Formats: sequence, structure tokens, C-alpha cells
Amino acid sequence: MPHDCEFLADHLADGQVSLDTDDRDGHAGDWGTPENERVRPDAVCWPESTEEVSAVLAAANERGIPVTPYAAGTGLEGNALPAFEGISMDCTRMDGVLDVRPEDFQIDVEPGVMGSAVNDAVDDHDLFLPPLPQSADISTVGGMVANDASGAKTVKYGEVSDWVLGLEAVLADGTVIETGSRAVKTSSGYNLTDLIVGSEGTLAVVTRVTVELARQPKQARGGRAVFEDLDSAAEAIAATMQAGVDVATIELIDPLSTKIANAYSGTDLPNAPTVFLEFHANHHIEAEIDACHEIFDEHGAERFEMAAGDAMDELWEARRNLANAMLAYDPPRRPAKPGDITVPISHFPEIVRYAKARGDEHGLDVTTFGHAGDGNVHYNVLVDPNDEAELAAGREISDAVVQRAIELGGTSTGEHGVGRGKREYMVAEHGEGSVETMRAIKRALDPQDTLNPGKIFPETADGERLRVE
Amino acid sequence: MPHDCEFLADHLADGQVSLDTDDRDGHAGDWGTPENERVRPDAVCWPESTEEVSAVLAAANERGIPVTPYAAGTGLEGNALPAFEGISMDCTRMDGVLDVRPEDFQIDVEPGVMGSAVNDAVDDHDLFLPPLPQSADISTVGGMVANDASGAKTVKYGEVSDWVLGLEAVLADGTVIETGSRAVKTSSGYNLTDLIVGSEGTLAVVTRVTVELARQPKQARGGRAVFEDLDSAAEAIAATMQAGVDVATIELIDPLSTKIANAYSGTDLPNAPTVFLEFHANHHIEAEIDACHEIFDEHGAERFEMAAGDAMDELWEARRNLANAMLAYDPPRRPAKPGDITVPISHFPEIVRYAKARGDEHGLDVTTFGHAGDGNVHYNVLVDPNDEAELAAGREISDAVVQRAIELGGTSTGEHGVGRGKREYMVAEHGEGSVETMRAIKRALDPQDTLNPGKIFPETADGERLRVE
Repeated sequence: MPHDCEFLADHLADGQVSLDTDDRDGHAGDWGTPENERVRPDAVCWPESTEEVSAVLAAANERGIPVTPYAAGTGLEGNALPAFEGISMDCTRMDGVLDVRPEDFQIDVEPGVMGSAVNDAVDDHDLFLPPLPQSADISTVGGMVANDASGAKTVKYGEVSDWVLGLEAVLADGTVIETGSRAVKTSSGYNLTDLIVGSEGTLAVVTRVTVELARQPKQARGGRAVFEDLDSAAEAIAATMQAGVDVATIELIDPLSTKIANAYSGTDLPNAPTVFLEFHANHHIEAEIDACHEIFDEHGAERFEMAAGDAMDELWEARRNLANAMLAYDPPRRPAKPGDITVPISHFPEIVRYAKARGDEHGLDVTTFGHAGDGNVHYNVLVDPNDEAELAAGREISDAVVQRAIELGGTSTGEHGVGRGKREYMVAEHGEGSVETMRAIKRALDPQDTLNPGKIFPETADGERLRVE
Repeated sequence: MPHDCEFLADHLADGQVSLDTDDRDGHAGDWGTPENERVRPDAVCWPESTEEVSAVLAAANERGIPVTPYAAGTGLEGNALPAFEGISMDCTRMDGVLDVRPEDFQIDVEPGVMGSAVNDAVDDHDLFLPPLPQSADISTVGGMVANDASGAKTVKYGEVSDWVLGLEAVLADGTVIETGSRAVKTSSGYNLTDLIVGSEGTLAVVTRVTVELARQPKQARGGRAVFEDLDSAAEAIAATMQAGVDVATIELIDPLSTKIANAYSGTDLPNAPTVFLEFHANHHIEAEIDACHEIFDEHGAERFEMAAGDAMDELWEARRNLANAMLAYDPPRRPAKPGDITVPISHFPEIVRYAKARGDEHGLDVTTFGHAGDGNVHYNVLVDPNDEAELAAGREISDAVVQRAIELGGTSTGEHGVGRGKREYMVAEHGEGSVETMRAIKRALDPQDTLNPGKIFPETADGERLRVE
């Protein structure tokens, strides 16, 4: 049922609202949304200020019209898909760097600022934002905050939530709130910042983010090592983490992913599991590299190559381009469903083995790669999208891996968020009591279910909104 | 109005419930509660299991009887004071170490476990819990979680919330929930863990805490330096932090605190501001110490002494005993109100100067000490507790310092929590919209205001409960 969105013209200027089919199509899903699951919003709007976000939300909330915040559209779980149509609120024009306070390692940005633009803005001060995802050139701070994103350096530095000090955010009824503090620690009141971070736009629209920054290390080196088999690579990574080696990045890509990466990047990595590494230190960086090298040797690593600067970037090329390589990977075989499970590090080798074995059972290839030091595995079961049986098997394998990860104390999603794709695992992962507590918070803050309905909560998989009517 | 708590006997065994005056007196306040503000609960109970916590809460909630969780009673803001009487739920008998998973750097403990007992339990694995407060020998993990506590090593390692992976907790109606994940990162659903951490027992009673641990550094050195005046010391600390020097601890104590510490510990520190330091590294620890030393020299530091092991402990003695020294400090002069403000590091010298200057204006001594690298200042205006005019002046000075900290982007409480003592600053610090959002969450999760009523929220300063009736 289309919603009447004419009221948007009362609050926004020409050029800030569109009812055009093309614009609506452009906001009907994200990277992870299959063609047949896309949902066109009734309207798209581009607010340029907190006041405009507030005015639109207040008016939409009054009318019972859903509002789904939209950032760069690079999500993988349908997080920004307007499941109940209504308004897609595109925040990419709110892309200002508002304030840089290098003396406090802090920056205030609007949500539409690209992740890499944060680093550009503070590079002169030798600062950087550590938890940026690989997609930081094309994804926004607002999106990262919405998903509590993380990235290759999370293994040393933590997730986005660890670096967000405070937010300005607009609630469903248009109320503007400020959360957190510019102090690096506070015990004052409930932690609304960490509640809104990772809530995927279901509790509030973020309009300003105060981010803490880190001092750039004086030394950085990185490179890669090759292993004979996937199990040895996974064991080497777990052993390195358990030894407390101070790695800034430790990433695994399996042989098939390596092949896909080679095809895209023109690199010539051997057809073997590859581990990509980076180290940060202010001095004597060799010591930690040596500690890692020793453990890797014990697990049969070959070609342990480390370099600095451009040479490091070159060693990293295949990993850096992997996400794009996966997207560009030519049919007929495509991922059945994106995987993003994360387990305690001691179970990392097991879950990698498990994913591979489930694929072997069905005669299907399963790529496994990701932020291994965090126990995070991105896996894709590759199937022929026109073969219903393969698709079903692909989904079955994906499901088995998630269930196993949860049994091992892990999570269905390390960094992509629940969106639509992981709703079915919420109760298995958290228990009904916890999910009901989340629902109670959602109802308390957004009783009309105006903000991004149809996400996170399992019952919304059946087409229900949480609205209290 | 006393509440009828006879029902407790239906859910707990003999010896787990007391109506005795002595037991009730022992739970009428905490370290920070002045004699005339203590409130005797109607009953004290000591549950020994999650089931017992759940049964008592469900029954009390049904009867509209307040339940205030009680840990070791070392709070400074009346956090565990039973403001509306009812039941003091003493969790110290739930003191089991439930599971140690050294391969994942994790431990599960009950809330009554002392902070230092966590370190004892994992020391053999060369692990430790970094954010413990100075009081870790006599304060519990449950209390630390309730206040989102922090400590001397927070400057390098973060707060308690940064190390809590998950909780088991009981809601006001007796529902048991589990939050978080054993995975080191997750983007699955709302972050209930960080919502409950720091909520001071107003949202749930924590019954199990899964804590992440850190690898003990291979090298640790610590010591102290003396400065000519407080301003130079504060500037040196800010400059050290801004240079990105990797300190594990950087603490300041002012001359008067030094004097108090000397009197208690029998140490003979000069009558000057002293900075206490600790460094952690796996190798080449001298490099960061040298970087710090250089900055300190530029600011006129004297007696820059560093050592390892027992010699380090000796250098640290005065700081380690400072909290007890403050408590033992002999009348006639006592702190008017405990201060715990935290500001962005660039404002640290200013707020230290400000506190001192306000004291000077009134001819009153103000001690300033604390976790300087975090911008955290514990200050005490010393007054004659029998002199109403001095007491009023002391409170006025304390208030001015908090207001100034908030103006500088800081917080009224860096680690002690709001309790009763900082409620009046909630709106100034967070704005009405944010406080109303916190209230909405409280009402959603605890509609009867059963759990620790009278804390955090400003209107409860007037004796109102938040109960929706």
C-alpha cells in the first residue's frame, strides 16, 4: 500500500524530495539484496540538516509512514531496504566535517561523510580512525555507526562502537538528543551511545558523530604468508592470537577466494590459503613480527613476506580488492547468502573446517575469508542462481554454519548487522528474554515502529510491524 | 513506610534473610553516604543463585516493594543506598568463578567475586583484567559492572564496559536474560550489555559476567616524578597524552594529597605534586619511558624514578594507599562531597587550576588526584563538617567544578556513577531529551520502578519514584 508522501514538500526544498521511479529504485535495497527482494520506497528524501531530519520524522511518525535511513547502500543484509515502503531518508548530503580537535584526538562529522574522508581530515595531525571497514572509500560513517561496523584493524583497535564518544540523533517523533561525552570515559547515566550504535536505524537517525581517533603508529609493516592447507592457516592464526602477539591485522583468505582475487586484481598468488598481516608499533616493530613469524613457521607457513609503504600495499592488493572481486565474480556461480559469523578464537579453526565440510557434502564450493584474528569468517556458498536445488543447498549450508557458530558461543553477525538476513537467528543467539527486552526498548523509543520497520526482530520476517496500535 | 518483607522466607532459606537492625544498618548506605543520609532497608537478603534472585525480584515487583542491589558497599555516590527502603539484595554470596577459558582470554564470574580474585584466578595463564579500580581487593565485579568502573590502567586499556562481553541478568519482573556474545565482536541486535553496564542496578540485577582478559605484558615498569607546581604537572600529563606516548597508567596527586598519603603510608614524598606512572610492553620498554621522560623534563620534572617488580611497588606505595589515606584522614577537616569529573585531556590543566582557584577564593583546601591521563579528577573540598558555612562553601565549590567540567564537554562522573550524588547534573550534562530517553528505557524495563529507585534520575531527587501506576 503506497503512502502519501506529499507532506515532504512542506519540510524540504525542491531537489530534496523525489517520487521518481529511478530514485526510488536506487533506494530499494543494498548490495546484499537479491533482485526479487527489492522494495521500492514511496519517496526518497535528502535532508541536509538535523532540523530537516527532525521535521520529516515528526511528520512521518504522526502519519504512520515508515522512514528507513539510507546511507551509501553498501550493506549486505538488506539493512537499508524500505521493507514497508514509505520514505527512504538518504543521509549522504549531510557530509560535513564539523569540527576537528586534534588536541583531544576527536572529530565531529555528519553521518554522510565517507569513512576514508575522516582519515583524510585528520591525516595532517598524524591521527586516524582505526576500525574502518575495507569499504571505507565508499561507505559512510553513518552506515558504520548503524551496523557497529569493524574492519581489518579491529583485531588490535576494536569496533566502531569503541571509537564513538557521542552522537546527536533524532528519535522517531522528531526529538533531537545528544548522547555520550567528549570525556574519554563517563559513568553518567545509561549508555545511549552504545545502544544507538548498531541499532541499524531502528531507534534513531544519527545526525552527528563524535569519534575518537588514534595516533598513527610511527612504524607500520605488513605483508602475507602462504599455508599448505586451510586448517594449518587457521590454527596458526588462533595460536598467534592466543600467544598475545600484537597484530594490527590478521586476515585469512582461502584458496578459492585467492583465485577470485587473482582474477580481479591480476595478482599471481599461489592457489593456497593466504594470511595477510599488518603490524603497528612506535619502535622496534621487528620484535612482534618475529614472534608471529616463529608461530607461523611452526605451522608450516611459506613465503612470509613483510614490507613497508608502497611495497606493503602491493603485497596487500589481492586482499584489498577482495570485496570487489567477489562482487565482480562472474556467473554462473554466485554466493547463496552472505556469511558473517564470528566465534571465540579457539573455535576459529573448527568453524572454518565446518563450513568447508558442509560444502563438500553438497559438492559446493564455499569461500571463507575475513578478519580471522577476531574469529570473524565471511563465507559464501557458491551456487548457480538459476538452480533451485543448489540455491536451497546453499541456504542450508549457510544456515548450518550460523547455527554451529551460535552453538560455539559466537554470533550470527560480526559486523554486517542483522538487517533482514539474520532475523531468524535472533532468538537462537540471544534467547527470547533478551529479544523481548530489545523489543521493549524499540517500543518505548519508537512506539509507531516508524524507523526502519521490518529489521532485526524475528517476527517482522512474517511481515509484521512492531507498531503498538 | 516500612514494607512487609515476610514473603522473602518463601523463596530463601534461613540465614539468607535478615530483619535485624544491625544487618539493615550495614546496608543503609555506602562509603560516600553521610551519616544523616543513611536509609535503613526493611530487610536484607543474600541470594545464592540466579533462581533465587529471580524469585525474590518477581515477588517484590508484584508487591511494589523496592529492591536495591548491594555489593561491597564501597560506592561513593550512595549508589547502593535503599532510598525508598524495601529490600537490600546483597549479592556478595554469589562469588563463584564459574568458568575460565584461557584459550579465549575469557572468564565467567558471579557478581560477588572481588576484582582482585579475577586476577588471582587467571594469573597462572599470564592473563589479567586491566580496568580494575584501586579498590579491587575490596570491591566486587558486580559493583564495577553496575558503575562502569575504571582504574589506573584505563588510560591504556579502557573501562570495565570495554571488557564485559556478556551478562546474565535478572529484570525487575524476574525474567532472566543473557546478553552479548563470547565472540569478541558482534553486530547482532541492540547492545544490551553496554546498556546494563553502568545502569547502577536500576535496570537489572547482574548474576553472571563474562569478562575478556588481556595478556600480561612481558615487561612492566613504573615509578613517579615530582613537579614544582600543579600546573606544570598537569601540562606535562596532557602533553604526554597528546604525543601519543603509550602509558599504562598516569596519575596525578596534588601536594596536599601527597601530605595525606605520607601521613598514612609513612612515605616521605616531597611536598609537591607527584605523577605516578606505569608502562607495559612486550619488549624494549625503555623507548616509551624515554619518550615520556623527555616530555616531563621539558615541563621541569624532578626525580623521574622508574623501577620494576617490588621496587616499583615501593615507589607506588603512597598512591596505592591514597583512597584509604583519604578515608583515614583525621578530622576536623573532611571532604564536603566526592568529586569525579572527567574532561577532554586538553582541558585537564584548566580544570585542575579551576578547582584550586575556587578553593582559594573561599580559603579552603581542595585536594585533586586521580586518573589524569583520562582527564579524570577526583577532588575534595576539605571542610569542617560541623561548620555549616564551610560545608555550604564546599558544596558550592564542588558544584562549580562539575558545572565547569560539563561546560568543557566533560562529565560529572568518570567512574563513580550518578547514584544520588550526581542526579542534579543529569539534565545539564545530557539535555532533557536524552534524560527522557533514559527514563523511557527505565519505564519499559522496570515499569514499577522496583530496581534501585531514587537513583540516576533528577526528579527522584524530590523523593519521587518513577513508577507508572
